[in-house]
Amino acid sequence: MAKAPTVQDVAERAGVSRQTVSNVLNTPDVVRPGTRDRVLSAIDELGYRRHGPARRLRLRRSSTIGIRLDPYVGGISGVVLDRFVHAVTERASARGMRMLVYSARSAEEEYTRLSELWDSSEIDAAILTGTVRDDPRVPLLDERALPFVSFGRPWGKDDIADPRHLWVDVDGAGGTRAATKHALAYGSRVAFLGWPSGSGTGDDRERGWLEAMRAGGVGGTRLTATEDVAAARGAVAQSLDDGFDADAIVCVSDTLAVGALLALNAAGRRMPVIGFDNTPTADALGFSSVEQRPEDVADGVLTLLMGRTGDVVVPRRPQAGTAHVLIEPELVVR
Amino acid sequence: MAKAPTVQDVAERAGVSRQTVSNVLNTPDVVRPGTRDRVLSAIDELGYRRHGPARRLRLRRSSTIGIRLDPYVGGISGVVLDRFVHAVTERASARGMRMLVYSARSAEEEYTRLSELWDSSEIDAAILTGTVRDDPRVPLLDERALPFVSFGRPWGKDDIADPRHLWVDVDGAGGTRAATKHALAYGSRVAFLGWPSGSGTGDDRERGWLEAMRAGGVGGTRLTATEDVAAARGAVAQSLDDGFDADAIVCVSDTLAVGALLALNAAGRRMPVIGFDNTPTADALGFSSVEQRPEDVADGVLTLLMGRTGDVVVPRRPQAGTAHVLIEPELVVR
Repeated sequence: MAKAPTVQDVAERAGVSRQTVSNVLNTPDVVRPGTRDRVLSAIDELGYRRHGPARRLRLRRSSTIGIRLDPYVGGISGVVLDRFVHAVTERASARGMRMLVYSARSAEEEYTRLSELWDSSEIDAAILTGTVRDDPRVPLLDERALPFVSFGRPWGKDDIADPRHLWVDVDGAGGTRAATKHALAYGSRVAFLGWPSGSGTGDDRERGWLEAMRAGGVGGTRLTATEDVAAARGAVAQSLDDGFDADAIVCVSDTLAVGALLALNAAGRRMPVIGFDNTPTADALGFSSVEQRPEDVADGVLTLLMGRTGDVVVPRRPQAGTAHVLIEPELVVR
Repeated sequence: MAKAPTVQDVAERAGVSRQTVSNVLNTPDVVRPGTRDRVLSAIDELGYRRHGPARRLRLRRSSTIGIRLDPYVGGISGVVLDRFVHAVTERASARGMRMLVYSARSAEEEYTRLSELWDSSEIDAAILTGTVRDDPRVPLLDERALPFVSFGRPWGKDDIADPRHLWVDVDGAGGTRAATKHALAYGSRVAFLGWPSGSGTGDDRERGWLEAMRAGGVGGTRLTATEDVAAARGAVAQSLDDGFDADAIVCVSDTLAVGALLALNAAGRRMPVIGFDNTPTADALGFSSVEQRPEDVADGVLTLLMGRTGDVVVPRRPQAGTAHVLIEPELVVR
């Protein structure tokens, strides 16, 4: 194979200095158009390829953000995370950043993977998703000083308010509060179909229902099922057998809403069912659902990482009050 | 900020040569365990960080594969492509390759984006998705000599058989053939609900239905709708009004299957409806669907790009017969 052409080769071919070639590559605005065209022609003719790793080596920066892409497990609501990854990829591109995706099967594997990428300077920062109570990734990444923003609150003792931990989240309680207020128009008996207690996200969404019911001076039945259509269908069918009745059901997810609808259908019953996530399934089946606005989450994450206008700064010591973004979800009524 | 520790610093601290440090980093098996531990301790104590771009600069390789992540447009079937991206990310990681995702709104923008990544040595190869008839990306990438594999056939005049164009695809006709054979158990009048003619993928799936019907010595009604639940629902409702009847409906996608089911439900009719893509929606609503096996597509793509065992080779001149993989889909009966 022939030796790859160098900047020197381009400079000779175009009859300019190496500095001029470098200017055309890095700050083309300072080069006169005629000269610029000559250099670009030489680049084309010689097939010169600019070498990204060399540039990054000089800058000691990768301009790359890492994000985990979980192994696919199916389910209706996984689409929200995919929408977020799509949106963050698009917006990062617009800011001149690359997105590197990696897979991991556990928090530990994710930490190992991120450490490798960080140690070899492949990434400048990471975006965490799927946060859980006392998330084990948070102290580990803190120790490494690896900058990160999470989609989802870390939900630890004092993590949520800690300005060192940047996060963007959706106000789940606000979403179910809006859904419940809407459902109360159909009658005072608004039931909630939630996940078993103990998940930060699920408890938060249940709180919104409770608050709206209390504000309306009413109470309602609470049913639970794991995140599975058949489980939700079974739980609602069993409750109907046991005499459960309501004017509407607010659900913690579209998955559970589909299960509730199937159980009601099979029992020949009809009542409004409201889901959470506004998935394509909710759209296809025509039930109302709370929209999480993952595109706005993506905007929030990149703004926290890079600043509103900046393209490089990873704020290592953000100010309290500017470290957290809570997105207000929106009820899509069908 | 203090100067970053170098390999020399690590060597001095551990009392070994720079070559030994390099061996520990690159070929640890050749280093005696005791020495290796001493070097690793020195690396830890000094906080030495191996520099990926520097290593890649030496190798002149990025160990990175680019793949487009389309802006999210909603819809039930988008999940198949996401499943593929998840699977390819996981399998690429296992082979020591990174996945770089980028967004593009058109074939032209994708080509521009890939050219930039290729010119700056950010990627070694690309994976194309969403191929169309006479795909404009194919000749452009050929001209650049940018190695790529497509998920989906390029569907051009002679592209499909051209061993220079590596592709993995799902045998759509095979899928609808299996679905139609299964549907014929319910009666001979099996209708097909397809997309308007002209898309390679849609025409291929329709062919499978036609072949199975001919093999059974029967004919059936063909309905069409664009990829949209409401459009499919409207088309089937209109046909029912016009006296359409069938023993079962085979659909080109789960989206159209949901529309067909909603129209049948609203008309108080029941007949088996079979979808294509085996999405979470098909699972939730309990209708049969053709599973595309995107995880096997991911395996096929990486095998074509890298060889069955290799971790670096991008075959530039593959042999005919080894350049294409057609995955046999599987009917999931519910």
